[in-house]
Amino acid sequence: MTSPLLQLQKKLRKNEWFLVPRTDAFQGEYVAPQDERLAWVSGFKGSAGVALIRYNQAFLFVDGRYILQAKEETDPKEWRIIPIVRQSLENFLKENLREKQILSLNPWLHTLHEYLRLKSLAKEKGAALNLQTSDPIEALWQDRPYAVLSPAVPHCLIFSGKSSGSKREQIFQQLQQKVDAILFTDCHSIAWLLNIRGQDTPHTPIIHSYAVLHQDQSVDLFVDLRKITPQIKDYLGQSVRFHPLENTIAFLNTLYQKQIMVDPHLAPLALVKALEEKGTKLVLQKDPSMILRIVKNAVEVIGAVSAHIRDGVALTRFLCWLANHPSLESLTEIKAADRLEAFRSEGTHFRGLSFSTISAVGSHGAIVHYHPLPETDRPLQQQTLYLFDSGAQYLDGTTDVTRTIAFGTPTPEQRHHFTLVLKGHIALARARFPYGTTGGQLDVLARQYLWQEGLDYAHGTGHGVGSYLSVHEGPQRISGNGFQQKLLPGMILSNEPGYYKEDAYGIRIESLVLVRECRSLGRWLEFSTLTLAPIDRCLVESSLLTLEERNWLNTYHQRVYDVLASWLNEENRRWLASATLPITT
Amino acid sequence: MTSPLLQLQKKLRKNEWFLVPRTDAFQGEYVAPQDERLAWVSGFKGSAGVALIRYNQAFLFVDGRYILQAKEETDPKEWRIIPIVRQSLENFLKENLREKQILSLNPWLHTLHEYLRLKSLAKEKGAALNLQTSDPIEALWQDRPYAVLSPAVPHCLIFSGKSSGSKREQIFQQLQQKVDAILFTDCHSIAWLLNIRGQDTPHTPIIHSYAVLHQDQSVDLFVDLRKITPQIKDYLGQSVRFHPLENTIAFLNTLYQKQIMVDPHLAPLALVKALEEKGTKLVLQKDPSMILRIVKNAVEVIGAVSAHIRDGVALTRFLCWLANHPSLESLTEIKAADRLEAFRSEGTHFRGLSFSTISAVGSHGAIVHYHPLPETDRPLQQQTLYLFDSGAQYLDGTTDVTRTIAFGTPTPEQRHHFTLVLKGHIALARARFPYGTTGGQLDVLARQYLWQEGLDYAHGTGHGVGSYLSVHEGPQRISGNGFQQKLLPGMILSNEPGYYKEDAYGIRIESLVLVRECRSLGRWLEFSTLTLAPIDRCLVESSLLTLEERNWLNTYHQRVYDVLASWLNEENRRWLASATLPITT
Repeated sequence: MTSPLLQLQKKLRKNEWFLVPRTDAFQGEYVAPQDERLAWVSGFKGSAGVALIRYNQAFLFVDGRYILQAKEETDPKEWRIIPIVRQSLENFLKENLREKQILSLNPWLHTLHEYLRLKSLAKEKGAALNLQTSDPIEALWQDRPYAVLSPAVPHCLIFSGKSSGSKREQIFQQLQQKVDAILFTDCHSIAWLLNIRGQDTPHTPIIHSYAVLHQDQSVDLFVDLRKITPQIKDYLGQSVRFHPLENTIAFLNTLYQKQIMVDPHLAPLALVKALEEKGTKLVLQKDPSMILRIVKNAVEVIGAVSAHIRDGVALTRFLCWLANHPSLESLTEIKAADRLEAFRSEGTHFRGLSFSTISAVGSHGAIVHYHPLPETDRPLQQQTLYLFDSGAQYLDGTTDVTRTIAFGTPTPEQRHHFTLVLKGHIALARARFPYGTTGGQLDVLARQYLWQEGLDYAHGTGHGVGSYLSVHEGPQRISGNGFQQKLLPGMILSNEPGYYKEDAYGIRIESLVLVRECRSLGRWLEFSTLTLAPIDRCLVESSLLTLEERNWLNTYHQRVYDVLASWLNEENRRWLASATLPITT
Repeated sequence: MTSPLLQLQKKLRKNEWFLVPRTDAFQGEYVAPQDERLAWVSGFKGSAGVALIRYNQAFLFVDGRYILQAKEETDPKEWRIIPIVRQSLENFLKENLREKQILSLNPWLHTLHEYLRLKSLAKEKGAALNLQTSDPIEALWQDRPYAVLSPAVPHCLIFSGKSSGSKREQIFQQLQQKVDAILFTDCHSIAWLLNIRGQDTPHTPIIHSYAVLHQDQSVDLFVDLRKITPQIKDYLGQSVRFHPLENTIAFLNTLYQKQIMVDPHLAPLALVKALEEKGTKLVLQKDPSMILRIVKNAVEVIGAVSAHIRDGVALTRFLCWLANHPSLESLTEIKAADRLEAFRSEGTHFRGLSFSTISAVGSHGAIVHYHPLPETDRPLQQQTLYLFDSGAQYLDGTTDVTRTIAFGTPTPEQRHHFTLVLKGHIALARARFPYGTTGGQLDVLARQYLWQEGLDYAHGTGHGVGSYLSVHEGPQRISGNGFQQKLLPGMILSNEPGYYKEDAYGIRIESLVLVRECRSLGRWLEFSTLTLAPIDRCLVESSLLTLEERNWLNTYHQRVYDVLASWLNEENRRWLASATLPITT
């Protein structure tokens, strides 16, 4: 049988380069099976990457996380894997694109911003950019999965905390420039704006859709109409008009001569072109709902707090179950992950996992994005570290937590490394900072003790987290290059330093934190740790902790116990009591 | 007599806005007296600001440091002072510039980058930009000082460490793009490139000049020819051709059809226009000598180390002189500063101060940019803090140091604040970090202990420092927004956290640090503190220091004593021995 790549290559002209990104037409992190074009053509299933294909060559650009995986999942006779740290797609094109060649792309899969960069690059090389009217992959993909049809559902006021009407009002109030309408293309923004949710992608409860918000605060929503039930129609009311998704362009064509706000980093080129061609005046600006969405309101904050109590109960039951398990060896990474999911699923408002669980024994823990598969699944062992990174979607909040525990007696080196990571975690958790501070400024607090010994971790310290939305929310983040977004009260981020010793073990301590005003210092900010789960005391080398650090840890553990105890049965409560005992010198 | 402003306003058309920046035609920090246009028209003598003048109105835009000073130095009937934090010049123009109005500027005083921003702003408002062919201020300024004529002098290889020839070669080697020539307009770059120095501005030993470096590595230098002695001509050799400064444009006009590299953030518009009009192909790029200049070579590093020994001797003699002075009250801020300068001037290779000394008693220390003037000069008092921030230009290096000392017994609050500042200073001094780290990431290390108590300082933590060049060198810096430039071995920066209690006292501890590879950790970076001067032990609250911090301070003091002792007389040595005694718990 001819491979998908060969089929595609037959369709290409001799002078044509064809781009296959991993994204879909909505630019989200998670992609539905029917939109996994890159996986279809290459076999590569990672969450980020882009292929560049000629009639006789094929290149796959991936980041550091995915080099090994890409090599394993693709056919080495067909594909050359290029780590972007060595050469980015842009630099590759600069070197290899020739005069009179054609760079082809599907205008639904690239944003205006990406397009403009590629265009100027092509122009520089005397090449042409070709926007495909139909994607050849769609014609070739025989066994393409059908889209799952799950209905849009209301996200009620008791969880969202603010009506869609007042959100729409607020958006126009805070605009610095008058526009006739705003085109939203980010499904997270639309879910937030209309207080609706769905199941169109794994792990993130969004509905694939576009929306136009007009000055009169009415909305035109473009969506597969089979997902719109009478209930949701009734819930959204008369101010929302429904259109089939495929009518989006025809509708945008009717907006000529109006001023339309569009986010050039989010909007697919196909939609922007549709507006431009009809003489619409584009106002290119960041999605104006973004800042309102990432700053959680009081109801969302309370929701996060209570979701974390239920999550903490599940985590405690899981940890206790492991600690008291009669035969650890009979368990595997997958069995453990499934058990944790089962404990979580008993919690009120549980709606699924917020990402696929990392459950990693020993050296698997050193592979930062390891997910156990049947072929890699490993039994839990008596003398090793076990790292699990997992989270859930609850109607009232999204969780994400990592704990690393020792089976048997940890080595002094493991305790030493664990304690350096813990000191960084505490430094960030305890940090106080003025308004205007970015996560880029705070990142080093979590790294300083590792750095002092020449150690580091090759990932950011923290990412934003949504409210029953994406577990990876931007642009707020804590990382060495996170300087675009100031931290504001109401934002939720992760605090997750780690250390990874290749082929040996991985350590990560992750809790979610809420940015809030300091109680004692007035207009000054601090983090409040939302996650409630014990940190393995037997991995802590107490002599490395300062008095303040020890106090933080003991106070945190006391709070974990106080909050969770009444939700636990006798066995779990007794186990938690001992797991949260104060550490002394 | 009519004020300069009124004279100027008479020359303006009714629909004209006239811009007077503080910069000269070379965009440096220090401006020669004959180029102090802003001070002439407004009276304001601060180091940063811009005036916007109409026939009946005048606005002066200044940053936070200069609001009070601007109000004091200008006539309130004539000028309205606008803090840029409240409204930037650009936002002001956006609000106030009207259709058909004219925004006039002197094309020598604005860079291409500034011009392009102003142009698009004017276009947006339907206004016109007018590039003056002759600056009205030059016609009106009757008692304009003559330029001081000091000769260009060689900066010999024993100090510069690299010949001009090999610098020129290196510049072309590292260019990513082929060009026919490079236009240098930054006098620091030209001084570095040709290994020459001068005295055209206070504090920074540059020569006002422009230079064109050709592919054959010859140079056309544009400069007041009276500064070019036979000796310097001989030193520079035949590869450097000399032209009068006023011939620059005529010369650039001859470069038509060539590819010329220009830095849009540095080059005066007048020069860029001259190139553009004749059809030269401009390659807009960062000054390619910049990174080579800010990364000091081995000879410059050794020079910095030895300059800091002489500086440390002067500082020790000064501190000992103060400590043993029979009647402190008879001294004043200015007298103390003069004495310090006298001690410094006895050091080999001394060539003057690198900036005007801050010598601040009590509450004056809380004014971050305070310089004593005869009318503010204050006697040294028995019960107070004294902050002095000073530096020198030596042929082999530039210094910048701040120490804060207590006269009499400091209060517990003063000791507490001093120790928080010291903890930050030590955290930065001890930091280790991987390649790729920016100063923006490290800044918080110096602030974290102050932040923990809701305290902060309203300035950056560190700035770059040149090698017998500017004491404020960029773009390397340590500050909350310093993410543009990675730290590289050989860079010199300041480490200067502080705390300022308004109307009471100021605390700052500043040493220069060199970025270098860690000895023990391989490809990992750390700072080495260059400055050698004791930190006042009686201000240290030792119970707030960790063991590591105490060790750092004691080791630093031991090194200060070991390095300086043999250069000191018996009295000074004995004083230094007691000032550098180890601190115990």
